[in-house]
Amino acid sequence: MIYLDNAATTRPKPPGVAEAVAAAMNEYGNSGRGTHPEALEAARSVYGVRQTLASLFGCPRADRVAFTPNSTMALNVAVSGLLGPGDHVLSTDLEHNSVLRPLYRLRSQGAEVDFVPADRQGRIDYADFDRLLRPNTKAVVCTHGSNLTGDLVDIGWVGDFCRRHGLLFILDASQTAGVFPIDMRKQHISVVCFTGHKSLMGPQGTGGLCVGEEVEIRPFAVGGTGVQSYSETQPEAYPTRLEAGTLNSHGIAGLGAALMFLERIGWDAVRAHENALARRFYESVKILPGVKVYGDFTVQERAPIVTLNIADLDSSEVADELAERFQIATRPGAHCAPRLHRALGTEDRGAVRFSWSYFNTEAETDAAAEAVRTLAEEAL
Amino acid sequence: MIYLDNAATTRPKPPGVAEAVAAAMNEYGNSGRGTHPEALEAARSVYGVRQTLASLFGCPRADRVAFTPNSTMALNVAVSGLLGPGDHVLSTDLEHNSVLRPLYRLRSQGAEVDFVPADRQGRIDYADFDRLLRPNTKAVVCTHGSNLTGDLVDIGWVGDFCRRHGLLFILDASQTAGVFPIDMRKQHISVVCFTGHKSLMGPQGTGGLCVGEEVEIRPFAVGGTGVQSYSETQPEAYPTRLEAGTLNSHGIAGLGAALMFLERIGWDAVRAHENALARRFYESVKILPGVKVYGDFTVQERAPIVTLNIADLDSSEVADELAERFQIATRPGAHCAPRLHRALGTEDRGAVRFSWSYFNTEAETDAAAEAVRTLAEEAL
Repeated sequence: MIYLDNAATTRPKPPGVAEAVAAAMNEYGNSGRGTHPEALEAARSVYGVRQTLASLFGCPRADRVAFTPNSTMALNVAVSGLLGPGDHVLSTDLEHNSVLRPLYRLRSQGAEVDFVPADRQGRIDYADFDRLLRPNTKAVVCTHGSNLTGDLVDIGWVGDFCRRHGLLFILDASQTAGVFPIDMRKQHISVVCFTGHKSLMGPQGTGGLCVGEEVEIRPFAVGGTGVQSYSETQPEAYPTRLEAGTLNSHGIAGLGAALMFLERIGWDAVRAHENALARRFYESVKILPGVKVYGDFTVQERAPIVTLNIADLDSSEVADELAERFQIATRPGAHCAPRLHRALGTEDRGAVRFSWSYFNTEAETDAAAEAVRTLAEEAL
Repeated sequence: MIYLDNAATTRPKPPGVAEAVAAAMNEYGNSGRGTHPEALEAARSVYGVRQTLASLFGCPRADRVAFTPNSTMALNVAVSGLLGPGDHVLSTDLEHNSVLRPLYRLRSQGAEVDFVPADRQGRIDYADFDRLLRPNTKAVVCTHGSNLTGDLVDIGWVGDFCRRHGLLFILDASQTAGVFPIDMRKQHISVVCFTGHKSLMGPQGTGGLCVGEEVEIRPFAVGGTGVQSYSETQPEAYPTRLEAGTLNSHGIAGLGAALMFLERIGWDAVRAHENALARRFYESVKILPGVKVYGDFTVQERAPIVTLNIADLDSSEVADELAERFQIATRPGAHCAPRLHRALGTEDRGAVRFSWSYFNTEAETDAAAEAVRTLAEEAL
C-alpha cells in the first residue's frame, strides 16, 4: 500500500519512536506522582519534551507547554478558557471542525463569531480581518494551514494584526507544527495548539498547547494533579493548571523521539522533501483532462497536500478505486472542513486528498499520479 | 528496584502490550478517518477493544464505550455532562481529586454536594446515604475503591440505593477496573469511568467511560469527528458524541493486548495473586511496634493497597528512605485524597502507600516488609 493520507496521521513513524514508547511502558512510573526513580524518570522525560517543544515554537517557558491527547482538546481548552459571552471572535473559512465546533458552541453561549470568507479558489483576503473587526473583538482563532487544500495562512500578518489591535491569537498548528516556522514571540501568538501524530511524527494520543506569558487560561478539565492536593480548585501554576489526571508519558516519550529525528534530519530538509513530492504530483496531475485541483499553487510555501476531483465522480468512489485497484491510501469526503468545501463548491461530492510525509518516495508519488491519469481517462 | 507503586500506574506492562502499541504505530492510519485499509485496521482494532470493555463492565452496547486519555477526563465528561446548577449530588470522603474537583466546580456553578463522611478508620456508614438524600438529589458520584487505603465501596448497595431513588450512579473505577466485578446492569450503574494504565495494565493515555442506555451526556470537548462534518454541533450518536479529535488508537491497541492478557490469566487469578501479596505484607507489618496501618482489613475483598506510617516520621521521609536505601518504590503524601487524609488524621504528614500488581512476587513483598521493620526499629 502506498500511504498518502499523512495529513490524517503520519505513517510510518520514524525509527526509534516505537522503541521509545515501548521502553517508557516498561520503565516509567507515573510522571508527577511520587519521587521514586521510576516516577522521576517519567517526569524528566516529559519535561525534556516540554523544553524541546517550547524551543520549537518560541514559547517563553517550558512549563507553559501543557499536554493534551490531541489538538482538538488543546483548541477546546484555549477557546473555552479564554473566551466567553459578549466576546467577538474572528476566524476563517479554512478551519477544521476542531476550531469551528468550539467556536459555534461559544456562539451558542453568547459570543459573536465572524469568518473571513474563502473565495472559489479557497483564498482569503486579509483586508477582511480589518473589515470584520469590532470594538468587542477579543481574539483571532485560525489555522496555520488548511487540512483540505494545504494553503497556508500568513501567521506573521495575523499576529501583527492581533498585536496592533490588542487581540489574543489562538493558532491551530495541526497541519504545520514542526515543518513550518512558528515563533510565538516574533509572530505574537498567544496560544499554539498542536498535535503530535501528524507532522511531528509522534504517536497518537499526544498533543498540547503552548501558552504565552500573560495569557491566563481557565482550566477545562479539573482533577488530580499530584500537587496542592488540599486545594479545592485546580492549581494556578502551569502546566498543572491545564493537565488534570495522569499524563500519557509513554506517548510523550515517543513524541520526544520523533522530535529528535526531525531535528537530526532538519526541519528544512523534511519540508523540502515533502513539498518536492507534492509539487511533483501536482505538476503531473494538473494537466490531466478532467482533473480539477483545489488550492493555490502559485505560492511555493504550502503544506504537502494536493486535493482534487476527477470528472464528475464522487470523491469516495475515486478514493475507493485508488485503494482497491492501485493500493493507494487517500482521504475523500469532507475532511471536517465544511466551510471551505462550501466555498470551493465541493460540498456535494467532497474531494480526494493526497498528503505526503518524509517517508514517501518519488516512485510512490509517480504511481499515484499515474493512477489518477488512468482514472481520469476512464472517466472521460 | 522493587516497584510497589502500582496504584499510581502498573509497571511493567504484560508481555505483548508494548509490541501491540509498536505494531499499531507502524501500521494504523487514523481510526474513523477514511476507508483505506490502514484507517479501517485502526477502526476495527478500536472497536474490538470497545467490545471487550463493554463485555467486561456489562455495558449494554459497545458503541457506548467512549475513549478518553484518562479516568479524570472521563469523570469530567460525566459530571459536567449530566449535572448542573440546582442539582444535589451525593459523594463520599473516600474520593480522589478526580471526583472531588469536578464536584467542587459543579458546586461553584450552583449545584449542591454532600459527602458521606469517613470515620477515623476510613469507613463509611451506608445509612448516611439515606440521611443525606434530598428531593433534588440527582446522582451519586463515588469511587469503587479508595486509592489511599484500598477499601472498597459496596457498589451493589449504592446501585440499589440509586435505583430505589431514581438517581444516576457515576462510578470511578480507577482502582478496580478489570480486577473486581463491575456489572452496569446488575449494579444499576449509569456511567463507569475507568483508566487503562492501572489495573487494566494498559498504556498511559488510555481510559474512558461506559454509558448506560437512556443516559444522555452533553459533550465536553467538541471538534472533528469524521462523520456529519456539516453539522455545527457534535454528532448525537455515541461514541462520537464524546470523542472529538483523533483517538489514541496506538494506546488503545496496547490496552486491547493488556485485556487479552488479563483474560488469559483470569481476572480472579490476578486478583487472588495481588491480594495474597498485599495481605502477606499487611500481616507482617501490622504487628510491628510504631507502625500504623490505615484502612479496614477485617474485610477480605479489598484493592491490593497497604498504607501506613512509621512512628512520627513524615511519609515523604519514609518513602525516600525506602527508595534510596532499599530500592523500593512507594508513594507518600496526599495521594490526591484530601478528605480521607483529614478523616484519618494524616493531613499533616500524609502516609506511605504500598500497592501491588500481578508481576510482584512474594520475595519483593517480604523485602518490603523487612524494610519497614528496619525503619520502624530505627525510629523507636
